Amino acid sequence: MNHTELLQHIRNIPDFPKPGIEFKDITPIFSNPTLCKDLTDEFVNSFAHTKIDAVAGIEARGFLFGFMIAQQLGLPFIPIRKAGKLPYHKISREYALEYGMAKIEMHVDAIRPGNQILLHDDLLATGGSAEAAAELIIEAGGQLAGFAFLVNLSFLDGENRLQKFDVPVKSIVHF
Amino acid sequence: MNHTELLQHIRNIPDFPKPGIEFKDITPIFSNPTLCKDLTDEFVNSFAHTKIDAVAGIEARGFLFGFMIAQQLGLPFIPIRKAGKLPYHKISREYALEYGMAKIEMHVDAIRPGNQILLHDDLLATGGSAEAAAELIIEAGGQLAGFAFLVNLSFLDGENRLQKFDVPVKSIVHF
Repeated sequence: MNHTELLQHIRNIPDFPKPGIEFKDITPIFSNPTLCKDLTDEFVNSFAHTKIDAVAGIEARGFLFGFMIAQQLGLPFIPIRKAGKLPYHKISREYALEYGMAKIEMHVDAIRPGNQILLHDDLLATGGSAEAAAELIIEAGGQLAGFAFLVNLSFLDGENRLQKFDVPVKSIVHF
Repeated sequence: MNHTELLQHIRNIPDFPKPGIEFKDITPIFSNPTLCKDLTDEFVNSFAHTKIDAVAGIEARGFLFGFMIAQQLGLPFIPIRKAGKLPYHKISREYALEYGMAKIEMHVDAIRPGNQILLHDDLLATGGSAEAAAELIIEAGGQLAGFAFLVNLSFLDGENRLQKFDVPVKSIVHF
C-alpha cells in the first residue's frame, strides 16, 4: 500500500458540510482502480488472523469497500442504513454526529446469533456512527470482530470511544 | 446465473415505502456471497463486447454492484449521489420518483471527455433516476455505454424511457 499515492487521492474541501469543517473527500480514490484493489487487500490482510463471519458497512460510502471486503473474503455483506430505507423488520439506534443527529437501522435477520462481524466505514470521526452500528450488531446477537476504516480523523478521538468494544481498530490513514 | 435462486433472495414487502407499493427487497442477496459473485459476473459478461472506460453507480444501493463491476473490469468507479453529499464542484439533475421528487449530483471532474460510461443501479422503476444520471454523464462530457440493472419493474415501463439513449439496457431479473 503506497500511502503517498493514497494521500494524493484524498482532497481537502474547506467549509463542508458546514463552515469551519474541513471535509476529506475520498472520491478521487475511486477513479484509481489499482489503488482501490490495494486498499481492499490491505483491509483483508489486516484481519487475516481474525475470525470473521460477515462484513457490515454503513450507508452510503461504507457500502463501497464494505461489500468489496466481504466479497474478497467470500462472506455475507450486511447493509446498515439510514432511517427509513430498510423495508423489513429492523432495529435502530440514534446517535450524535459531528454536525447534527442521525439514526441508523439494520434488518433483524441480518446477523446469525454468535457470528463475528467486521464493521467497515470510510471515515472514523467522533465514532458516533461506528458505536451505534456496533451496538446494533450486538443487539442483533452478533459479536464484533473489529473495525476497519479508510480514514481516521485522530484529532476527534473516535478510536477512544470504540475501546469499550475491545476489538482491533484498523485505519489505513490518520489525520 | 441461477435465476430461481436469485428470485428466492428477493423479498416482497407490501406497502413500502408507501401504502399500495410493493417493494422488492434485495438485501437477502447480500447474505449469499456466491450469488453476489455470480451477479457481478453476469453484469460483466453482458457487456463483454462493449467499450467501457468507467462504471457509474447511483447512491446508495447502486454503489454495491456498481463498484464491484468497476473493480472486476479494472475501471474507475463514479459515484452519483443524492443532493448535498458530494463536497466538490458538481452538476445536478432533479427528477420525479415513483413516490416524490429527488435530486442527484455528480462531481464535475468525475468523467474524462469522451469516456464510455456504464451506468448501474439496483432497480429500474419508472426510469427517472437512471435518465437523470445518464443526462449528468452526458453533460459532463461522457458517452453512455449502457445501463445495467439488477431488477427491472417492467410494468412501470422504465426501459421505454431510456430508449432515447440508444444503448443496451441489461436487467438480470424482470417483474
